[in-house]
Amino acid sequence: MNEAGYFEHGGNLYAAMRRQGGGMEALLDFSANINPLGLPESVHRSLIEALPHIIHYPDPESQALKTAISKRFRVDERQIAVGNGAAELIYVLCHMFRPQRVLVPAPTFSEYERAARACGAAVEYLYLSPAEKFTISAESIVQRLPYIDILFLCNPNNPTGQVLPRETVERIIALAEKFKVLVVVDESFLEFLSAEASLSCRSLLPRYANLVIVQSLTKFYALPGLRLGFVLADHAICKMLDKGKDPWNVNSLAQVAGTVALADEAYRAKSLAMIGDAREAFCNKLGAIPGVIPLAGSANFILVNIAGTGFTSIRLREALAQEGILIRDCSNYPGLSAEYIRLAVKLPQQNEILLTCLQKLIEGSDRV
Amino acid sequence: MNEAGYFEHGGNLYAAMRRQGGGMEALLDFSANINPLGLPESVHRSLIEALPHIIHYPDPESQALKTAISKRFRVDERQIAVGNGAAELIYVLCHMFRPQRVLVPAPTFSEYERAARACGAAVEYLYLSPAEKFTISAESIVQRLPYIDILFLCNPNNPTGQVLPRETVERIIALAEKFKVLVVVDESFLEFLSAEASLSCRSLLPRYANLVIVQSLTKFYALPGLRLGFVLADHAICKMLDKGKDPWNVNSLAQVAGTVALADEAYRAKSLAMIGDAREAFCNKLGAIPGVIPLAGSANFILVNIAGTGFTSIRLREALAQEGILIRDCSNYPGLSAEYIRLAVKLPQQNEILLTCLQKLIEGSDRV
Repeated sequence: MNEAGYFEHGGNLYAAMRRQGGGMEALLDFSANINPLGLPESVHRSLIEALPHIIHYPDPESQALKTAISKRFRVDERQIAVGNGAAELIYVLCHMFRPQRVLVPAPTFSEYERAARACGAAVEYLYLSPAEKFTISAESIVQRLPYIDILFLCNPNNPTGQVLPRETVERIIALAEKFKVLVVVDESFLEFLSAEASLSCRSLLPRYANLVIVQSLTKFYALPGLRLGFVLADHAICKMLDKGKDPWNVNSLAQVAGTVALADEAYRAKSLAMIGDAREAFCNKLGAIPGVIPLAGSANFILVNIAGTGFTSIRLREALAQEGILIRDCSNYPGLSAEYIRLAVKLPQQNEILLTCLQKLIEGSDRV
Repeated sequence: MNEAGYFEHGGNLYAAMRRQGGGMEALLDFSANINPLGLPESVHRSLIEALPHIIHYPDPESQALKTAISKRFRVDERQIAVGNGAAELIYVLCHMFRPQRVLVPAPTFSEYERAARACGAAVEYLYLSPAEKFTISAESIVQRLPYIDILFLCNPNNPTGQVLPRETVERIIALAEKFKVLVVVDESFLEFLSAEASLSCRSLLPRYANLVIVQSLTKFYALPGLRLGFVLADHAICKMLDKGKDPWNVNSLAQVAGTVALADEAYRAKSLAMIGDAREAFCNKLGAIPGVIPLAGSANFILVNIAGTGFTSIRLREALAQEGILIRDCSNYPGLSAEYIRLAVKLPQQNEILLTCLQKLIEGSDRV
């Protein structure tokens, strides 16, 4: 945790600028998992157009946005709650549901744990094993269901990139239902997978009232600065979420951006093709650097073991920062250590810059 | 409450458009208390410039914004928590503080009550009397302090526009401290008063750890669509608020807008001069319409009793909506009735349009 009491995340360009000086443009940010194609042109245009409307309150019903989500993901509008980023909804859920015991994988996105602790819950870790490529096994979860109130699953998991098949998730949800356990499945990075539709738990919504799907729209559509996410869940849960927050939580620009982005099929197709190829090439080239072992995952980021390089993640982060390159040092993840870094998959030419820098650093270091 | 389970507020242009059709520009909105000068030009320019940066996460420490707030209001940065609108912070405060009993004036801004109920609190009303011009008396509050956990005060009060002198507020806070009662003073409309600095409770912060000042920046700087507000309070309370929400709650455009707006002294001076004069003229002219009794208040809105017009607030709202004019029907405020409407003070020429319409409607109606 940093001074402000936050876990240190990737993507903190402002902290990097405060540390190093210099502008935002001078930095190459591999620490945030944002679509490297940048803001869709359609979204950019609509934001310029919508800017004068910020003198009015946002639509408290987010009607256009909900219609777009409903259409794109084929869900009932009554099963949608919209948020100022997915993270907001994770906090509101914890505040309103008030779990006593929460189970989170380790490693995973740290805001589940922080939100659970904020509302007074005890947090238990489901440690994932590097020997098993950090795969989540249904068995290990099932035996802990009687003792918890909420289970958080990130699919694909951040920072490992590992994907759980829908059948496995369903098995867990079905058993969780018997123990009145809420299963929160965070599908924020699923849009980066071409098999997205067959992996998502959306089709399970009509069957399980204990399923809460959380999804960010800021990663795939490259608008984390605007904040936008949503929950898909039983209507009763959506109503509870709406009750626990003010009616204007999604700003009007984010509402416009989401509505336009979700309809931009061309951007989606281009992103999927580009990132799939870029990830594979990046992964292969990383693996060819001595001492670097990338974990083959499926999202737009790669967990990398650097134990064999002689660098700790902290030292490597600092060395790359000198070159204007930001990476995610994974030493503050429960379940990981200073042997790991996480790299976003960026444009091929950007990935090459990192590869070159990394190779040079590792070759130049006095390995022990 | 409407279908979505919200209290119906003013400023819902989107609902008006859904009801009536037509575009946003065709509506003259007296139902939202927004500075009629619109977005400061300095803010507009900085937003255009900042737009490309939404591909990065917001600064989780909101450093530039906090510095601007600290400078403008002469408070320690450690006594600031920033929010996605002031309303967000009211909810987070209730979630984290978990009051059992909350006292709110009636009438007042309804989100205090809704936030308190969301976290399971019982809400009690301090009914204000029209005969006493809805003035809040310290005595009536003091006797209820032993039985409550949080007291909300809106100063000037929305929708009455009545102002409490700082000495009165301090007396309440000092006594509340003895009973461990948190006093939340919402100063969101105080910026519209030229006596702002001498009325604000900011100078009391060093003395009272049970004082929480809430302030919206969206009314005075005309950016409700962007969402921006803050809390000034003891560092322990600010830390608690930060703990209860995600680290990226203030989007990056709102951070830029707030930083620039707070430094724009010219816009502030112009607004104060314009609105003070416009309010007085509007109030006088309203009072000259038969059956219309405006309550002399000090904010950028006017509570108006229309009992003598033969119209209910609901019928008047509907009749004016036909002319493309939105007003705040106050019949859903506890402590008010269909005898009241609230009107924002807009530009003189806009106020004239409403005055003409109102006069015509009232003259044409079959009064009983």
